Amino acid sequence: MSLQIDETHDPARTSWVVSANGHREFPVQNLPFGIFSPRGSARRAGVAIGDCIIDLRGLTAEGFVSCDAASVLHHETLNALFALPSEERVALRRRLSEGLSDSAYRDRLQPYLHKASSCTLHLPAQIGDYTDFYVGIHHATNVGRLFRPDNPLLPNYKHVPIGYHGRASSVRSSGVPVRRPQGQLKPPDRDRPIFAPSQRLDYELELGLWVGQGNALGQPVSIAEAWKHIAGLCLLNDWSARDIQAWEYQPLGPFLAKNFQTTVSPWVVTTEALAPFRQAASARSAEDAALPYLTDTQDQQFGGLALELSVSLLTKRMRYEGMAPFRVSQGDASGMYWTLAQILTHHTSNGCNLLPGDLLGTGTLSMAEREGFGSLLELTLAGSEPIALPTGETRSFLEDGDEVLLSGVACTEGRTNIGFGACRAMIVPAP
Amino acid sequence: MSLQIDETHDPARTSWVVSANGHREFPVQNLPFGIFSPRGSARRAGVAIGDCIIDLRGLTAEGFVSCDAASVLHHETLNALFALPSEERVALRRRLSEGLSDSAYRDRLQPYLHKASSCTLHLPAQIGDYTDFYVGIHHATNVGRLFRPDNPLLPNYKHVPIGYHGRASSVRSSGVPVRRPQGQLKPPDRDRPIFAPSQRLDYELELGLWVGQGNALGQPVSIAEAWKHIAGLCLLNDWSARDIQAWEYQPLGPFLAKNFQTTVSPWVVTTEALAPFRQAASARSAEDAALPYLTDTQDQQFGGLALELSVSLLTKRMRYEGMAPFRVSQGDASGMYWTLAQILTHHTSNGCNLLPGDLLGTGTLSMAEREGFGSLLELTLAGSEPIALPTGETRSFLEDGDEVLLSGVACTEGRTNIGFGACRAMIVPAP
Repeated sequence: MSLQIDETHDPARTSWVVSANGHREFPVQNLPFGIFSPRGSARRAGVAIGDCIIDLRGLTAEGFVSCDAASVLHHETLNALFALPSEERVALRRRLSEGLSDSAYRDRLQPYLHKASSCTLHLPAQIGDYTDFYVGIHHATNVGRLFRPDNPLLPNYKHVPIGYHGRASSVRSSGVPVRRPQGQLKPPDRDRPIFAPSQRLDYELELGLWVGQGNALGQPVSIAEAWKHIAGLCLLNDWSARDIQAWEYQPLGPFLAKNFQTTVSPWVVTTEALAPFRQAASARSAEDAALPYLTDTQDQQFGGLALELSVSLLTKRMRYEGMAPFRVSQGDASGMYWTLAQILTHHTSNGCNLLPGDLLGTGTLSMAEREGFGSLLELTLAGSEPIALPTGETRSFLEDGDEVLLSGVACTEGRTNIGFGACRAMIVPAP
Repeated sequence: MSLQIDETHDPARTSWVVSANGHREFPVQNLPFGIFSPRGSARRAGVAIGDCIIDLRGLTAEGFVSCDAASVLHHETLNALFALPSEERVALRRRLSEGLSDSAYRDRLQPYLHKASSCTLHLPAQIGDYTDFYVGIHHATNVGRLFRPDNPLLPNYKHVPIGYHGRASSVRSSGVPVRRPQGQLKPPDRDRPIFAPSQRLDYELELGLWVGQGNALGQPVSIAEAWKHIAGLCLLNDWSARDIQAWEYQPLGPFLAKNFQTTVSPWVVTTEALAPFRQAASARSAEDAALPYLTDTQDQQFGGLALELSVSLLTKRMRYEGMAPFRVSQGDASGMYWTLAQILTHHTSNGCNLLPGDLLGTGTLSMAEREGFGSLLELTLAGSEPIALPTGETRSFLEDGDEVLLSGVACTEGRTNIGFGACRAMIVPAP
């Protein structure tokens, strides 16, 4: 068994949509799906191509897309598209790649192109359930070290893909401002908690996984089948109020510290587009071998992802001074101790049912070194070592007016890079 | 401000649906909402009355219900009904009470009555998010004592209404069998976990709260307004695999130990029907006073509920021998350290948005004494003291073929008791 790499991935393929050629994120090799509305018009499915979006509803009405997938492209969410067998998504991808690369189709398809800058992007799916994992081993180690310097990783970490349920209702697309949460905080020097705006507001750099085909309650998904249940990926910022979290999280885990908002990049970079960027999962010693239900040869060979990830910050003053966002960390996805297939299979291993459009977060993807830490909690050693910004400002945690920007690009030798698009949001003051 | 108690609560009111008079759960004073399908027919909204269900879709088509609520009674879920202002639900309740009690309406409404025994009941709403709390102070104390005999309650318990997100996709209505989950178990005498069917499968006796009107992201619901956001209550069984839980729950809380299934009673007992059964919340010392955002005079006066709760067990052998379910515990709702208004307000206090049809569980409602413990974990002291059943069988935890039945009845002096209906499900073997 090998991964399906076909003509849609050919680096020589160019598009008649000129802005796509050499585009950092959306060349014709990417073709991510999303839900958008042209100014003042209704929501519809689209695909990003260069600086434009092509209207899939229009293409089906026009008759250009007539494969089995066409019937699901009239909806205002992608849930029905996600629910298709992956073969049908592949057929759709090939047809779209053909239409957008062969200039013979230009006159026919041009009317369905919109400038992305004049469109609004929305959440791609109605999210039934959102689950967040903890697969970043460097993050788990960094955070654990704050509490247990000698023994940062808990005994279950290398056996169980740790995860917990998050809040589906408060997931928002890139660009929606994040209101600073109020909550119970208990400063160490006080006997009792106070109710006040969080003073330790943080971001977390994660990947999001959009569930494709679901599974019935009571019927686990085997590790060999898991990838077929993944529709695609996005960037995900798991905003976290560290002071609320510290006081509330025992014994049932994070709750109000996390559920006030979660930001995702609105484009779904499909598993098909990511095929050339899959690589070996991070190596494990024999002693750390996963249990059989989480072990699969193909997953070991192709469970990793060649993704460059970074976080940038833009403060109010930087914005005022016309400065570009300042990169505070840069790394890749190599810190994933568990693969996407492993978290999906683990999630269903007890019979729990996943539905198309469910969202799974990976957890914070930090590197082993400080330059690649994926949260301020780690970068500033829990606030004790503020980071310096080019304005002379410092940050222990986020201030009102700060904007956080996540970036992700898949890149590997001999292939055209593809990107995830924007995942950014600004902090606005507590009510 | 006082609670609205009107003619619909009059104990002297009887129904021309004869089975309703003296009915243990569904007299004309109750009128809970649900979604049902008559044999072979489509889902529709209904109200339980005695041994029957009246078809609300039919009543609106007929013109009997013409209040503002009528337009939402054509849906296949109650989400839109829940989203109405509570005044509109009150008007609907009064109209239904009138129609079902005044025999002048008999001929007109009779055609819309179905025998409940020939109908299937469904989940009343599409659940956006499900959250489970931990308000039962005796349960928290009993469970805490297993780990920390001298200091069972954690320091945050009396300040924070502890809660966590559960799984919406696996909530099922009464009667749907529960497949024993498999998962990672780590017996104390082994170095490494195994993957096997849970050997410590348990139930938890809870109340469920159906969210009525929601709140916008970033806009908390004040404690004074909280009750208006509650559409009604149900019984809820938070099935729990104690062995999976013990190994997975650090540091992010319960996950696969709980999300394989949650069972609810399908009838929504409305806040309007429960008005006469509201009573003072459990008293607190001045030292334990809640923070101001969780404090309200009306809530202190009416935040408690006069509910009798019990759990019964029916094993395969009991069923074979034709025995009735055996009651293993009996108590009431007095162990709620936090009121329903407090958990709802706390949930939104950071700006988290609730949607109509969201489900909030209270957490296990145990009594201080063993007779009223709401889980086997507590009743059997973590399995060390099995309970005896009338067949001579014993149980530490649930076995395949065991059926668990929760029961809840609201009762108070001078009022007609109203009940919640069935919340039962049987354990079937792991795959």
